Amino acid sequence: MATFALHPQLAADGLFLVDWPLTQVLRMNDAAYPWLILVPRLTDAREIIDLSAADRVRLMDEIAWASQALKDLHRPDKINVAALGNLVPQLHVHVLGRFKDDPAWPKPIWGQAAPIRFEPGDAAREVETWRTALSPYGG
Amino acid sequence: MATFALHPQLAADGLFLVDWPLTQVLRMNDAAYPWLILVPRLTDAREIIDLSAADRVRLMDEIAWASQALKDLHRPDKINVAALGNLVPQLHVHVLGRFKDDPAWPKPIWGQAAPIRFEPGDAAREVETWRTALSPYGG
Repeated sequence: MATFALHPQLAADGLFLVDWPLTQVLRMNDAAYPWLILVPRLTDAREIIDLSAADRVRLMDEIAWASQALKDLHRPDKINVAALGNLVPQLHVHVLGRFKDDPAWPKPIWGQAAPIRFEPGDAAREVETWRTALSPYGG
Repeated sequence: MATFALHPQLAADGLFLVDWPLTQVLRMNDAAYPWLILVPRLTDAREIIDLSAADRVRLMDEIAWASQALKDLHRPDKINVAALGNLVPQLHVHVLGRFKDDPAWPKPIWGQAAPIRFEPGDAAREVETWRTALSPYGG
């Protein structure tokens, strides 16, 4: 049986936060935006319609959990939710907060600027902050 | 009781296709991409987490219906699904097909180029084609 393996690009771009029932939750390593990535822990899923109906409901639940934690933590002006995958074929869903004074507003953030990586100490603190914010969910 | 009214920008950009249980389905008036927009027929919804849990499941179902019809009709290389709303605050979900030889590939399509409007006769044919493709769903 094939087991889930995170795509190398997502592994390079994201900081591991938690495994939820369906998805692995990453903090995108870009200090410019509060930005989570949800990756269904399945093999060979590229599109949302590759998921079973039950997994699609799980995915929607987990998008809502991520959105609520993001809202509680950062109070963004707008939440963007997107499954694009033009560059990385493994199904993944972006859940991120936008602000009217952020660098790309009102454009989408993808392909706009190179990510601003966290310094190692900042990354560890950021991971802990998100894990606390996400901890009410996923049970 | 407030009734649903489509945001004027969405009304200007989209061709009406059908009302599903939750969403009004539009064909984005841009001949460059096979592109649907799903607008929950609710008042004051801006974010997916503004929806009830039951409506979130309906939204996921309708995203899947739109994605399947899109796949059947156009066989895109990738489906993009996104709720952004940085410019138009009324909650709406884009479901569109991407091709490796399309004008914006692999970038997101939003904010890249002005839409290529359908000529009136082409618009009428496009609407009929989509209505036929969507007709198995929504019941």
